[in-house]
Amino acid sequence: MADLAASVGADHVLPGDGADLSAYTVDQRRRYRGRAWAVVSPGGTDEVAAVLRLAHAQRVPVVPQGGNTSLVGGAVPDDSGRALLLSLRRLNRIRGVDADNRTLTAEAGVILQTAQQAAEAAGLLLPLSLAAEGSCTLGGNLASNAGGVQVLRYGNARELCLGLEVVTPAGEVWDGLRGLRKDNSGYDLRDLYIGSEGTLGVITAAVLRLHPRPRTVLTALASCAGLDDALALFERLQARSGGALTAFEVMNPQALALVAHHRPGDWPAGLGPAGAARGWTVLLELSDPREAGPAQARFEALLAEALGAIPGLGDLHPAQSLAQARAFWRLREAIPHAQAADGLNIKHDIALPVSRLPAFVAAADAAVRALCPGARPVTFGHVGDGNLHHNVMAPPGVAPADFLAANEAHVNRVVYDCVEAHGGTISAEHGIGQLKREALQRHQSPVALALMRRLKAALDPEGLMNPGRVL
Amino acid sequence: MADLAASVGADHVLPGDGADLSAYTVDQRRRYRGRAWAVVSPGGTDEVAAVLRLAHAQRVPVVPQGGNTSLVGGAVPDDSGRALLLSLRRLNRIRGVDADNRTLTAEAGVILQTAQQAAEAAGLLLPLSLAAEGSCTLGGNLASNAGGVQVLRYGNARELCLGLEVVTPAGEVWDGLRGLRKDNSGYDLRDLYIGSEGTLGVITAAVLRLHPRPRTVLTALASCAGLDDALALFERLQARSGGALTAFEVMNPQALALVAHHRPGDWPAGLGPAGAARGWTVLLELSDPREAGPAQARFEALLAEALGAIPGLGDLHPAQSLAQARAFWRLREAIPHAQAADGLNIKHDIALPVSRLPAFVAAADAAVRALCPGARPVTFGHVGDGNLHHNVMAPPGVAPADFLAANEAHVNRVVYDCVEAHGGTISAEHGIGQLKREALQRHQSPVALALMRRLKAALDPEGLMNPGRVL
Repeated sequence: MADLAASVGADHVLPGDGADLSAYTVDQRRRYRGRAWAVVSPGGTDEVAAVLRLAHAQRVPVVPQGGNTSLVGGAVPDDSGRALLLSLRRLNRIRGVDADNRTLTAEAGVILQTAQQAAEAAGLLLPLSLAAEGSCTLGGNLASNAGGVQVLRYGNARELCLGLEVVTPAGEVWDGLRGLRKDNSGYDLRDLYIGSEGTLGVITAAVLRLHPRPRTVLTALASCAGLDDALALFERLQARSGGALTAFEVMNPQALALVAHHRPGDWPAGLGPAGAARGWTVLLELSDPREAGPAQARFEALLAEALGAIPGLGDLHPAQSLAQARAFWRLREAIPHAQAADGLNIKHDIALPVSRLPAFVAAADAAVRALCPGARPVTFGHVGDGNLHHNVMAPPGVAPADFLAANEAHVNRVVYDCVEAHGGTISAEHGIGQLKREALQRHQSPVALALMRRLKAALDPEGLMNPGRVL
Repeated sequence: MADLAASVGADHVLPGDGADLSAYTVDQRRRYRGRAWAVVSPGGTDEVAAVLRLAHAQRVPVVPQGGNTSLVGGAVPDDSGRALLLSLRRLNRIRGVDADNRTLTAEAGVILQTAQQAAEAAGLLLPLSLAAEGSCTLGGNLASNAGGVQVLRYGNARELCLGLEVVTPAGEVWDGLRGLRKDNSGYDLRDLYIGSEGTLGVITAAVLRLHPRPRTVLTALASCAGLDDALALFERLQARSGGALTAFEVMNPQALALVAHHRPGDWPAGLGPAGAARGWTVLLELSDPREAGPAQARFEALLAEALGAIPGLGDLHPAQSLAQARAFWRLREAIPHAQAADGLNIKHDIALPVSRLPAFVAAADAAVRALCPGARPVTFGHVGDGNLHHNVMAPPGVAPADFLAANEAHVNRVVYDCVEAHGGTISAEHGIGQLKREALQRHQSPVALALMRRLKAALDPEGLMNPGRVL
């Protein structure tokens, strides 16, 4: 404890047996309640290295944490009370923006929204965007390879990262902070650390790729008879817009019914009676480098052509103002809140080949209904990336907690078996953490798992980094 | 030998002491002349695995090879005559195109151009495009993370690959052939194998990401007083076209003078006297989803605005026909041929932050001229990605071979020191192979090299895969 205090300053070490540490030791969904030997908050890369050298010398496990917004229990310690909780929140400097290279260099503890604002101040766009952006950190985004609503156009956190600075479990610093679009100088260390959930080392800073800001953003809601109609609209707009689609989200009727019930204030005006949707609703967004006038005209022409060409396409509502566009997005963003208000449910963050989505949804819903008659799949997500949030609610009249306790493992099993049968993944954008560790063992191939174990042993031979996560 | 013949068929094993194997053992630039114990050409993934199991049991080194187009000696054996040359050329099946998922699954030995054509037949675009596309293979493209002329818009081979099938050095098959845009199910094995140049395992098949085909492609040549003017044009078009630029290439006056001298037939009509360029010439290409009429009008308006805004911008020639666009590209593609006709030169495939390019070129050219008075830097390349081919020709009157023998190591040293000082990489898109192995040791950080050695030891503990490459 004295060595830690000497490394980072006594103010930045909280002993585990002292004050309430639940802000660090309990995850945001309150499924995992751990304990820490201490919470340490270094103020820079050199201090992170010093802490890791101490932990390494004493063989103390280390759990790195950013904004503590993991949805899979990835960033809280177990309940042994042995681990050092390493908070990266004080590494919060934007080290620089290189506008001509369209890159931003920032430390791991910078809040995503702060980084977005720094890019905007330089006239550029950091397109990583997700629900937790006001509290999650860049380090956590990269450690979990975060996705979000603009992956379709700009890629995941992985594709937005050009360079990393990482501290190894032994406390060495790898300076890979290069802002290069092409670099073939040895093995790809960067992508190995991205998505490794703090189990191989600690990301302390990154060079992120920025994009030109689109002059005009166009938004619309559309209703579709079936998911295949939504996909026909997607393929058509993707081809005819030159890949200018930035978001293509779907919501099933149950998802909208939940919003209508629990969050009626989030139902957009002019959309018809709340909760009357029978098919799938699409929220789509397209970027255009031109001014609003010609951009909107072109957008509405594209939509009108689609309406003529796709029989299963119903109403189409291009937003007529920024306020209306925001209202459309509020509907989409209200779904998780409405779900939370409704009570616990069984969540699946999955991805499939886009072409397999309709068959998957039909098969998974049938399997869930056969297992739990009356259970209601709430399905929504980033369908342009093949990514669905496929959540299962208790049948009406059944207490959600009882439903979860009795059915979660079985429902996960049938849904993940369906995912595997359709060539998908059990984790699209949330990672593995603790929640999906067993499922990974079942659904990842033995050869892949053996290779991953070798990588873990090579880079963290003592097994100190975020133990019990991923593998 | 009998075991090999039993695994792949006697017709597909060529003994090293038999017929002329120089098509496999000599690289295309004829800098590396090796010998093989045998050349083995398996016909499928299972046969690759069988060969690797045999090699592993006998501790025989294995050199994987596709089209043998490496520019860094990455795919030919050393001269010990101990290695098995594993040709992947018979793994040449397109396993499928999923148009609705916009993916193509193909084996490692498929020629890049064949894969491009398969995508086109499905109405889609495989945007990986490079000079060797008529003879290089997908496996080699992925093993070296190939770049090319459309990286600006579509990324390197890495960004175009969604899934891989790999045979490990011990002959196990990892089936990671997933066609997913989001997948966070454990460590990123895919990106570790991509760019590892056959030193960690053998890529046998891949799922590639396809894109919508643009309806119209627009091309122009522009002359700029300085490289900074070319970059001003780049930034402006990038922002105002919504990222629709697919290529942005520069050529310095020496590069064009070489074409004018050695390949006068490749000089485009209507461009003024051959070789008269004093500044930098830009070749740019932009994609548009609309028909030719409005797309061309918008393109010419964008260029005219740029001409008014950037004082250092001289002539602008938007191509008026597909034939003229092809002629513009022929000028660019003629540069390497003109260089070859001129004789040997000292080649550097480097990348820098785009913002540092003008300062780098000034510093590197000055350093080269100080070292070798009269030497002529021929500089061209994919400047939108920060990637330059910076080649140094002998002073007039000095025999190229003598110049190379006397100066190559020194010139490399000063150019790579300049690259490092400006935050760049010594290998942008060609890889390390044998040619740059020593330079990598000098210019990659010791921490990075130590991490890479651990990965190599973890995945190829016997050191059998493509020994002497990369590390």
